[in-house]
Amino acid sequence: MTRVCLVGLGRTGIEVAKAIMEQKDLRLVSAISSPNSRKIGKDLGEILGCPATGVIVQGPDQIEPIVFQSRPDVVVDFTNPAATVRNSKLFSKMKVNIVVGTTGFSKIAMYKLYVLTKKYHNAILYAPNITLGVNVMMLLTNLAANMLNNYDFQITEIHHKHKKDAPSGTAVKIAKEIEKGLAASGLPETADVPIQAIRAGGVVGKHEVLIVGENDRIEISHESFSRKAFALGAIKGIRFIQGKSGYFEMNDVLNLQKVLGDYL
Amino acid sequence: MTRVCLVGLGRTGIEVAKAIMEQKDLRLVSAISSPNSRKIGKDLGEILGCPATGVIVQGPDQIEPIVFQSRPDVVVDFTNPAATVRNSKLFSKMKVNIVVGTTGFSKIAMYKLYVLTKKYHNAILYAPNITLGVNVMMLLTNLAANMLNNYDFQITEIHHKHKKDAPSGTAVKIAKEIEKGLAASGLPETADVPIQAIRAGGVVGKHEVLIVGENDRIEISHESFSRKAFALGAIKGIRFIQGKSGYFEMNDVLNLQKVLGDYL
Amino acid sequence: MTRVCLVGLGRTGIEVAKAIMEQKDLRLVSAISSPNSRKIGKDLGEILGCPATGVIVQGPDQIEPIVFQSRPDVVVDFTNPAATVRNSKLFSKMKVNIVVGTTGFSKIAMYKLYVLTKKYHNAILYAPNITLGVNVMMLLTNLAANMLNNYDFQITEIHHKHKKDAPSGTAVKIAKEIEKGLAASGLPETADVPIQAIRAGGVVGKHEVLIVGENDRIEISHESFSRKAFALGAIKGIRFIQGKSGYFEMNDVLNLQKVLGDYL
Amino acid sequence: MTRVCLVGLGRTGIEVAKAIMEQKDLRLVSAISSPNSRKIGKDLGEILGCPATGVIVQGPDQIEPIVFQSRPDVVVDFTNPAATVRNSKLFSKMKVNIVVGTTGFSKIAMYKLYVLTKKYHNAILYAPNITLGVNVMMLLTNLAANMLNNYDFQITEIHHKHKKDAPSGTAVKIAKEIEKGLAASGLPETADVPIQAIRAGGVVGKHEVLIVGENDRIEISHESFSRKAFALGAIKGIRFIQGKSGYFEMNDVLNLQKVLGDYL
Repeated sequence: MTRVCLVGLGRTGIEVAKAIMEQKDLRLVSAISSPNSRKIGKDLGEILGCPATGVIVQGPDQIEPIVFQSRPDVVVDFTNPAATVRNSKLFSKMKVNIVVGTTGFSKIAMYKLYVLTKKYHNAILYAPNITLGVNVMMLLTNLAANMLNNYDFQITEIHHKHKKDAPSGTAVKIAKEIEKGLAASGLPETADVPIQAIRAGGVVGKHEVLIVGENDRIEISHESFSRKAFALGAIKGIRFIQGKSGYFEMNDVLNLQKVLGDYL
Repeated sequence: MTRVCLVGLGRTGIEVAKAIMEQKDLRLVSAISSPNSRKIGKDLGEILGCPATGVIVQGPDQIEPIVFQSRPDVVVDFTNPAATVRNSKLFSKMKVNIVVGTTGFSKIAMYKLYVLTKKYHNAILYAPNITLGVNVMMLLTNLAANMLNNYDFQITEIHHKHKKDAPSGTAVKIAKEIEKGLAASGLPETADVPIQAIRAGGVVGKHEVLIVGENDRIEISHESFSRKAFALGAIKGIRFIQGKSGYFEMNDVLNLQKVLGDYL
Repeated sequence: MTRVCLVGLGRTGIEVAKAIMEQKDLRLVSAISSPNSRKIGKDLGEILGCPATGVIVQGPDQIEPIVFQSRPDVVVDFTNPAATVRNSKLFSKMKVNIVVGTTGFSKIAMYKLYVLTKKYHNAILYAPNITLGVNVMMLLTNLAANMLNNYDFQITEIHHKHKKDAPSGTAVKIAKEIEKGLAASGLPETADVPIQAIRAGGVVGKHEVLIVGENDRIEISHESFSRKAFALGAIKGIRFIQGKSGYFEMNDVLNLQKVLGDYL
Repeated sequence: MTRVCLVGLGRTGIEVAKAIMEQKDLRLVSAISSPNSRKIGKDLGEILGCPATGVIVQGPDQIEPIVFQSRPDVVVDFTNPAATVRNSKLFSKMKVNIVVGTTGFSKIAMYKLYVLTKKYHNAILYAPNITLGVNVMMLLTNLAANMLNNYDFQITEIHHKHKKDAPSGTAVKIAKEIEKGLAASGLPETADVPIQAIRAGGVVGKHEVLIVGENDRIEISHESFSRKAFALGAIKGIRFIQGKSGYFEMNDVLNLQKVLGDYL
């Protein structure tokens, strides 16, 4: 049984909480909300719309006693970069492993996570694109770009109309993967891959890559049709990080080294 | 300048002839049709609907004198397995390299090609799925299957209504790649991947793979919108095989070893 | 304020209940479950995972007293054809209007609903395909078939792997619309439109129509990405039927007569 | 047998010529190229890459003698708006019916065509979007907009990278149809429908309309996979206009009045 502490109870955090509670090998032992949140002091069940769980939501100023009392093996973090770095320091000191699903990290902030694992020998999985499928898609587009470097590439992403940032962080990451693949193929220099962002209706999240040649084309798309896709990525991350030590990203969870080796 | 002999002047063969004549580094030096074809004795230009080329179409009983006279570096073969094996023996003896785009080979027939390269030290590229894009797609679906082995897989292929065989050989090959990927992931045993074949209108050729999980899905599709896609694959094959020795498949043309190594 | 009674608390019924409670112009005044259901006697809020609503779920043997006490303007029915016909008799006698979202009706059962509206002068909306978008799609495919009667038609439907019936009732209805369109165009007799049913992962419901000619193709697809799509169709139906008298189908809700007239 | 004169021998004009020659009920009796074209004086067969046809390409300064000698029933015009208007005057005076596939007309230029038919009682079909499928798509999107006026609309068009104008005229026309549909539904005022134009590889032409609601979406796409799609629209137009009098557009060819009436 892996004991899990959840930090961040926004829309995705709530989905993660529900998903953790459905797993037989995981137990949600504590939950931390943002400072001044109205959720503090309530039973987690009340927030999720289910029976009482015995887990009372706490504020982020209580991290040390929470860890002492609830003894989590893994912390899952869906907050914001500043909060993640601040909290991760405390969790790392206390040898707790961490799954970071928070998005919007700078390179420096990422590096800070890396340094924590070196110093405290715990494990951190940095996974802002926590959905498994999206990471598979990124690998596929990188490889396709390397093999079809004279094709035209185009990314389209569609999200619900309440999403504020455009293009999505994931689309930007996909563009980078394509550019890496093109560079690896020996292409001297390349223009940026164009990204189109569509905001419409209630679409959870879709990313589409067009790879078009003179006479044929490949299309690769990924669509999450439920927010639970994020939660299941987090679950996979928790199981992966449990008992490990070091700094990891989703490529490690996907075990790409083995997968590509299998093919050869 | 690479000198090319084309064997087989069916629908794809004609496209290949046109494409070869557009390349500056390739010269079409001879063309061989099926026995008793009405094309024998005509100038190739007449068959392609373009000005005279000086290349007179000959029958397959003339292979040795044709090679002596036209001195091809590479033969491109779009005929049928029996003819390919028969002709390849003669070409191999005469140290000509061969690109085989013919489909429908048995394992034994493939093995015969392999043996020829061992015996005569020429090079044969066996590439029944000659379109580059389709081969990229096969790799991608294999890898996706390895990483997402608990997802459901489904193949749909759409071709023009005059195509007789269903499902297409390419769809069957994609299914095998998915099954290989699932097996490599450690999945004990798997049901066959379902394939749906649609015959409608004038669709040149489309293959689509659905990879569906509980909360998200990936779609990978390849569509040739011109028969020239086959021809360009053949061109790439000619350039690849020129000067080589040994038995090859499209994975070698795609240089997968390097591409996957680049990623790691 | 329109007062609504909900009959049937299955997966779709629960979505409908939630959606009704979010509308300012609708009030859910009573809820009826199947006989012997464990839900009977509980507060509806408990079933929906939300605070108490004051509406206690009752059994179907209580219809008359429920109507007397809760005085609904409209009943929404998501049960089964036998129950719908039985209950609709009682509701019609009491001059309550009815939205029927139940699927699987025979022609005779549909006719019985029609007769009730003639006898009791209430209104019934028969809408087994309650999602608005699906009904729009049906119209579009009918018209396309009438205009492109020499094209090939093909339907593909994808649903989650727990769906038992295949092809879906909606796909069958779409096929009929296409066949009607082809017939209206003057085509003498037509083979059935092929339907492919895919059961994979957690797909809520997608229907796709391919219309393929020699040189071009049209694709029309509809996908529900949330079960709430059914609920919103029901809401639209409630608002439509309120205050009316007579027998209606979704084409009336869509106001097709006006829409097509607008175009001409 | 309908006698046809073709004006304009650009990429689409050549496709139209080929398609006309394949029809049993049509005879191509004369062909007119742009002034100073190198094609003038050559046999049409030479230009099409097929055996001699006996039709010698002439210049546009010869219209009257050409009509006297070749006696066409219908002229097909794929030139430019200025040439079309100039030539149409002459053809109309001589009572020849005209199919105009030329794009880029101003409202005034269109009106001039209308006036010609009033004055000379011949018939003109103005059909800049000559492909049948595209016109069907336009109708469908108009109707969908009228019925789903609270959904978000988005157009994407993809063409080969040599296409200079963006967005395509067809995409702009589709946007107008959507806006008409929304207006007809009673929507007070609407923002422009966003259009994304993608230029990639050798795509002949694809238009896609996304119609996205909170919980479901409809996608309607049209793709020409061969330039022959334009030619077949022209053929349909020739057969339609033959023997008629008056000004027409593609909606008349599609017989929308009847098609929509069939549905009601």
